[in-house]
Amino acid sequence: MNVTRKNKKQVPEPTLRRLPGYLFFLEKVREQGVMNISAPTIGKELKCDPTQVVKDLAVTGVKGKPRVGYNTYELCHSLEEFLGFNHLNEAFLVGAGNLGTALMAYQEQQTLGIKIIAAFDVDESKIGKHIGNTPVLEYNKLFHLSNRLDVEIAILTTPNNVAQEVAEDLVNCGVKAIWNFTLSILDLPENIIVQNTSMSSFAAVLLQRLNDSKK
Amino acid sequence: MNVTRKNKKQVPEPTLRRLPGYLFFLEKVREQGVMNISAPTIGKELKCDPTQVVKDLAVTGVKGKPRVGYNTYELCHSLEEFLGFNHLNEAFLVGAGNLGTALMAYQEQQTLGIKIIAAFDVDESKIGKHIGNTPVLEYNKLFHLSNRLDVEIAILTTPNNVAQEVAEDLVNCGVKAIWNFTLSILDLPENIIVQNTSMSSFAAVLLQRLNDSKK
Repeated sequence: MNVTRKNKKQVPEPTLRRLPGYLFFLEKVREQGVMNISAPTIGKELKCDPTQVVKDLAVTGVKGKPRVGYNTYELCHSLEEFLGFNHLNEAFLVGAGNLGTALMAYQEQQTLGIKIIAAFDVDESKIGKHIGNTPVLEYNKLFHLSNRLDVEIAILTTPNNVAQEVAEDLVNCGVKAIWNFTLSILDLPENIIVQNTSMSSFAAVLLQRLNDSKK
Repeated sequence: MNVTRKNKKQVPEPTLRRLPGYLFFLEKVREQGVMNISAPTIGKELKCDPTQVVKDLAVTGVKGKPRVGYNTYELCHSLEEFLGFNHLNEAFLVGAGNLGTALMAYQEQQTLGIKIIAAFDVDESKIGKHIGNTPVLEYNKLFHLSNRLDVEIAILTTPNNVAQEVAEDLVNCGVKAIWNFTLSILDLPENIIVQNTSMSSFAAVLLQRLNDSKK
């Protein structure tokens, strides 16, 4: 059941992206009282080849048994553990606009694996309020708060034109990984992990696939 | 300057995802009055190898000139055209919660290439209101409205447990492409394009990269 470090390093991104989907489905199945589930059954639900299912789930270290399948409880537990969703991965969020607000609401409804402990903004009408359970603080308080807390993850939902500046501040505050929702390409030290999630990029892919389908 | 159909079909997804970033940067440069720009300059800003820049931008049909580079105006125009961002790609949105609201606000601030013309929800406190310029309508009106309008794109930001049902309704309403923000794996006819953009998946990738970096 232990995940070896070697295993973890080799997990390809497409597999990683699929894992929360498995977890979501398996949690639902577990709630329904299903004790065991086979790879073909999982594959059918998730529209994924059973061979791929076996390969994907192997990263958790859990193996299915012939004619029985996977133990649902064991698999859920291992997926949560592997994804780090059972840990409290604390994060700051900068930019409590619409997208920031959506993400704060999202994390309270869904298993995001990340707990936003404070949001920062420069807009005085937002400062001092709570979004869900998350307080919105004055941006300058970031420096003070990061001294006291050891937060390694930051979510960047600022306007594009201040993204670089804010990202540099975050790095100076000890942040190691930035989830960047802006269109800015961040120029940061190489050891900083940047995950770009620009909505425009996904829209571009969708539009292109739609156009291609018409040919 | 014309994009051949053949060319379009062969564009790999990573390139497609980068194109809005190029466009965003080039629009900024164009505003500053820069007439020409070289691939190495673009690459430096976007932290991308110049060879990759040349390859990526080649999909638009625009070629740089030796010692001069690309014409900024021509390149912006061609990128917009290629991405379909100069067209009005009308879309419905179902689920005017936080994420739906964020996307509606987002499209008014940024080049998303998609114009949400109406949002639908079952929550009476939302129905009849506007989010930005977008009206929120009663969910049942979807069927009536889709008869009158030829909308091919839908954004799905409902709770997970109703996603499949709503997606089926959308397909029955003539929608050809669904941008799915839920964790549900949608089971739809094969000709329907589904773009899955689950926040949990991106969080999983970020957390894994952060953990890997600590080894």
